[in-house]
Amino acid sequence: MVREDVIPAITKVSGESEFIDRIRRQVAGSHAREVVLGIGDDCAVYRPRGAAEDLLFTTDMMIEDVHFRRDTHAASDVGWKALARGLSDIAAMGGVPRFFLVSLAVPRWAVPRWVDGFYQGALRLSRRERVPLIGGDVARSSKLACDVVVCGSAPRGTALRRDGARPGDAIYVSGRLGGSAVGLSLGKSRRRGPAWRRHTRPEPRLALGRFLRRLGATAAMDLSDGLSLDLRRLCLASKRCAAIGAPPRFPGATIEQALHGGEDYELLFTVPPATRVPSHFEGIPLTRIGVMRKGRPGTVLLNGAPLAPLGFDHLRA
Amino acid sequence: MVREDVIPAITKVSGESEFIDRIRRQVAGSHAREVVLGIGDDCAVYRPRGAAEDLLFTTDMMIEDVHFRRDTHAASDVGWKALARGLSDIAAMGGVPRFFLVSLAVPRWAVPRWVDGFYQGALRLSRRERVPLIGGDVARSSKLACDVVVCGSAPRGTALRRDGARPGDAIYVSGRLGGSAVGLSLGKSRRRGPAWRRHTRPEPRLALGRFLRRLGATAAMDLSDGLSLDLRRLCLASKRCAAIGAPPRFPGATIEQALHGGEDYELLFTVPPATRVPSHFEGIPLTRIGVMRKGRPGTVLLNGAPLAPLGFDHLRA
Repeated sequence: MVREDVIPAITKVSGESEFIDRIRRQVAGSHAREVVLGIGDDCAVYRPRGAAEDLLFTTDMMIEDVHFRRDTHAASDVGWKALARGLSDIAAMGGVPRFFLVSLAVPRWAVPRWVDGFYQGALRLSRRERVPLIGGDVARSSKLACDVVVCGSAPRGTALRRDGARPGDAIYVSGRLGGSAVGLSLGKSRRRGPAWRRHTRPEPRLALGRFLRRLGATAAMDLSDGLSLDLRRLCLASKRCAAIGAPPRFPGATIEQALHGGEDYELLFTVPPATRVPSHFEGIPLTRIGVMRKGRPGTVLLNGAPLAPLGFDHLRA
Repeated sequence: MVREDVIPAITKVSGESEFIDRIRRQVAGSHAREVVLGIGDDCAVYRPRGAAEDLLFTTDMMIEDVHFRRDTHAASDVGWKALARGLSDIAAMGGVPRFFLVSLAVPRWAVPRWVDGFYQGALRLSRRERVPLIGGDVARSSKLACDVVVCGSAPRGTALRRDGARPGDAIYVSGRLGGSAVGLSLGKSRRRGPAWRRHTRPEPRLALGRFLRRLGATAAMDLSDGLSLDLRRLCLASKRCAAIGAPPRFPGATIEQALHGGEDYELLFTVPPATRVPSHFEGIPLTRIGVMRKGRPGTVLLNGAPLAPLGFDHLRA
């Protein structure tokens, strides 16, 4: 346990990462042999006895007035995105999604029309990616909240992690960043077009993730909370620092939106210096933005100057 | 999709069961070969390629002012119970718990003291049952809500289900029923003792569940929403009806509390007529309460008269 007197400072200053670290310290040492990777990456990794594949598990909440608003986000978009966020975590580890479960807490206003729309959105993506809904839970609540658990698989020992980047590795991102932030900033009358679609119907990069696993990427994660914060997390996990230039920007995005805007669900990955990475994968640009270095773990330099981790933190005050 | 014009009636009359049936109809036919059992039982069952064991998955929410109250329920009790409810689902299928994940939506008032207590409660049970916490999610919210996913395992094809009861099978319950209802009804000054403990710190019947699997029980489920409703669900799944007498009562419980009170987390199970069931298992009484019959699926007769399913339904109006 962390002492009470230091907790307020931790909670205010560092938010989600410290929160997760505290839980991780409490469970340290309690893992069974089958748990290959526990708290702190995009997915946990479990190795069933006798199985040829490792199983990947990720869980993501979406909460009314935190992740979406009833009056601006269509129910089907919320359902799609709830599943897409979990699939993006599976993509980040190079996995194949196998099934998912949905827990749904429902206020009176949402039954039945909104709930139907929610499942329609989730099941459309589910069918396209061939990942069946196999269970869940339902309860009443005052605000709508859902929690989606996705299970994926990867050949034993091959799942991409955050902690494998080495000094000299090249740093890449897929796609163009800041689109979701642009979409979120649009006024009510302009909520359509590519940026709004990027915000409401993100595309998990599943095929790209599997390609990167076969290519021999040393580390990967999905960009859910903004490049500045997510790259810092990758650097902390790998105990390295990173030096980057400006990332490719989504049309209309500012450099701040591309650096700090969350929910792009593109992939951030590192490869050994000699690895040849194609310029595109299935139409998605893959752009070299920098290089991993020795140095103070977690530091990110943008054009030589320290970059503050201003991405989205759920617990920051 | 169900037609819009019939939805209000369904939602009002039948609540949770119909809600789940509707979702099940939407996903029908989309299952992969590895999905042995989908929506509608205590757990979903997944068979990893090449593995000797099936994996069981269950997910359960606990929401402030729905499942617990901040001023009456200690944080550590909420954490314990959040995990215990999932473990009880694993017990109901005769499984061994393997790991769990926690998603936690946290209001400002809860950080950090309440959250620490919550994890302490969950991790105490986690250590006792050797089921490690391997991941989760965290977000802000206005009310505290958690969703716990538990994965268990059972030898291939042996997990106990709700749908295997046959006419002539004897119906049993473990323990004595209504204790949690008694605990919940206690006034503020009397919130201690066995009934309050039953309500706040339920004991998942994991060893009993595995014993019943080896004994050859034909069906099993845990009593989470009250005997009257849960036995109806078992009958519906097995397409049979049930004739029972009064179940054993927790000290101080009324017959209504024993029949309809939820959250006892005892096991309800059926065995072939010739199976010898011991009177106790590890100190827990096992009581024959009736017999399965042919007849209108879902009907439950108590001393010959139809018993209304008055247990707890999360979505009933």
